[in-house]
Amino acid sequence: TNSKKILILAGDGIGPEVMTQVKRVLGWFDRRRNTGFETEDELVGGCAYDKHGTPLTDQTMEKALAADAVLLGAVGGPKWDNLDFSVKPERGLLRLRKDMALFANLRPALVFDALAEASSLKTELVKGLDIMIVRELTGGVYFGSPRGIETLPNGERRGINTQVYTTSEIQRVARVAFELARKRSNKLCSVEKANVMESGVLWREEVQKLGDTEYKDVQLSHMYADNCAMQLVRQPKQFDVIVTDNLFGDLLSDCAAMLTGSLGMLPSASLGAADAGGKRKALYEPVHGSAPDIAGQGKANPLACLLSASMMLRYSFDMGEEADLLDKAANNVVARGCRTGDIMAPGCTLVSTSQMGDEILKEL
Amino acid sequence: TNSKKILILAGDGIGPEVMTQVKRVLGWFDRRRNTGFETEDELVGGCAYDKHGTPLTDQTMEKALAADAVLLGAVGGPKWDNLDFSVKPERGLLRLRKDMALFANLRPALVFDALAEASSLKTELVKGLDIMIVRELTGGVYFGSPRGIETLPNGERRGINTQVYTTSEIQRVARVAFELARKRSNKLCSVEKANVMESGVLWREEVQKLGDTEYKDVQLSHMYADNCAMQLVRQPKQFDVIVTDNLFGDLLSDCAAMLTGSLGMLPSASLGAADAGGKRKALYEPVHGSAPDIAGQGKANPLACLLSASMMLRYSFDMGEEADLLDKAANNVVARGCRTGDIMAPGCTLVSTSQMGDEILKEL
Ligand SMILES: CC(C)[C@H](C(=O)O)[C@@H](O)C(=O)O
Ligand SMILES: CC(C)[C@H](C(=O)O)[C@@H](O)C(=O)O
Repeated sequence: TNSKKILILAGDGIGPEVMTQVKRVLGWFDRRRNTGFETEDELVGGCAYDKHGTPLTDQTMEKALAADAVLLGAVGGPKWDNLDFSVKPERGLLRLRKDMALFANLRPALVFDALAEASSLKTELVKGLDIMIVRELTGGVYFGSPRGIETLPNGERRGINTQVYTTSEIQRVARVAFELARKRSNKLCSVEKANVMESGVLWREEVQKLGDTEYKDVQLSHMYADNCAMQLVRQPKQFDVIVTDNLFGDLLSDCAAMLTGSLGMLPSASLGAADAGGKRKALYEPVHGSAPDIAGQGKANPLACLLSASMMLRYSFDMGEEADLLDKAANNVVARGCRTGDIMAPGCTLVSTSQMGDEILKEL
Repeated sequence: TNSKKILILAGDGIGPEVMTQVKRVLGWFDRRRNTGFETEDELVGGCAYDKHGTPLTDQTMEKALAADAVLLGAVGGPKWDNLDFSVKPERGLLRLRKDMALFANLRPALVFDALAEASSLKTELVKGLDIMIVRELTGGVYFGSPRGIETLPNGERRGINTQVYTTSEIQRVARVAFELARKRSNKLCSVEKANVMESGVLWREEVQKLGDTEYKDVQLSHMYADNCAMQLVRQPKQFDVIVTDNLFGDLLSDCAAMLTGSLGMLPSASLGAADAGGKRKALYEPVHGSAPDIAGQGKANPLACLLSASMMLRYSFDMGEEADLLDKAANNVVARGCRTGDIMAPGCTLVSTSQMGDEILKEL
């Protein structure tokens, strides 16, 4: 069938308002290009907890598994900061990733020409920057056991988490990274702490093995995670594709995103394994968080969420042409000087979340 | 007695050449101020492996435990990159930290006025920057067990590491951070991933408890590690003292160090618990690594190692006046435009490692 089921999980904070603009754009594609989108809304995060006592109901989880793609806004906020660990808003997102088996998180860190000056880095260091971080997303310390807090005989408490990676977990995410490197500058940097952690030793060995056998054509290097954090700040353009584990990927991709100075513009894709027909389970979400301080005020930048939808068009629905159209619209609107507060600059026009949506529709 | 036993572990790469300058300066203090320094040299890292088959012999470990302070240069290099995990150069350093019980690693990230322009960040974002990162150094995933690589029944391999923190481990390093905050701007930010890791939940709870009881006067905040990586790049001056665990501290302190643009200038101190007489075991080392690419060429900047020696004077020998003298000498020399390659700027004079030592001695 031609129908494309999209589950929309707007979430908390600015999630709903940026998602409203995404829906307008998806509607436009559906009317003009007969794309056959079928969207459905559900709750995730704090709002799901408020209604159901859990950040993700089993029913929503089932819908996510049945959908062709999931679009997520953002989760969390101070309102839920003191909740028990197991019902924190973030746990809903983590369950989605794990149960959908979305092991490869693609995080482009891209500097938009019109926004290069907004970086906290000197402009020449970031102009033209285009890094792709591939973060392992269903393993490592995020999901390893044993885990928890226990009370010792002497009355002390002890917190435990377990970092664990198997050969196949490392290989499958490394393959995604190698393939992406081939489509880009053919350069892959693998990041771990093999000088401190045995799980990092295994990581390095397995990535190197793939480099020595299936991907001899890709220029492979290895870097310790602390050095990578330094090098991202010192000379970010040295990187093309970076592959790393769940926890290092969390810090390094956020660091790289911030380098671009356009956090409100950065999308992400989380992909599962390809089935027999080549289809992957997938979830798309902006890199920015729920920004509770500006939620509900029409100040949020919907472009990161719109560009996440564009990644969905490209990776889940093979609609490269439509994705290009949407990417171009976003670039043009920003180049014309339409700006939400986060990317505002002298001489530009301040627009609201919905006005930004208007401008995108005008471009399309 | 007045004698002060200093064990010098110059290590690999540029370690020996920067340490040579430190010894000249320590000699000056000894002659001029009768400080009673007794220095002894031993091997650590790759050079120790080459000679003894281990990156740290038991004998050197005993000397470190018997010393009043240990000064370390740097360890590691490509020559030893393919060694087995247990004999990697870094394992020598890690054993020193663990066996000396140096749980509090103090890493100042300081922008020197004369070098503010050298940061990759825009000058106004870093001018005057002065952050102190307190990194837990003897716990967490660096030392937790079980750990290792095992082969599973299905032939796959699995790498395991364990992140573990007890109440008292968290409290003792947090206390060091709270005390430092009191001597500075009275602001402490504690960093973990309490939304993902139970060990982070415990970390946050224990730090908060201390904040609510013994350190009510200190302004305490909590931040997730990924957000901290972002905020360091976005607006580093928002931070005063940061306290975090071993692994996050590794990445975040390197990131913060790189922000300053003067990596070759940054010292660190690693402190143990105070004994009955108030004395702490301590190791001092520059933040930079062994820089094998420039080793042996007289290009290395000895100031980070010299400033580490200054931290030793201050923290281990209560010689605040002498430490101030040395800090001031380093600042003056740089302000006068004497520069090694790493901090070279237009209009300044390029000096070698030993010339930089000459200039420091002239200032003293
Ligand atoms: C919200 C949180 C659980 C999540 C993570 O740590 O993975 C977020 O920081 C991210 O990077 O998507
Ligand atoms: C050399 C290495 C073991 C060490 C660490 O990871 O702690 C280094 O990066 C540091 O920060 O001092």
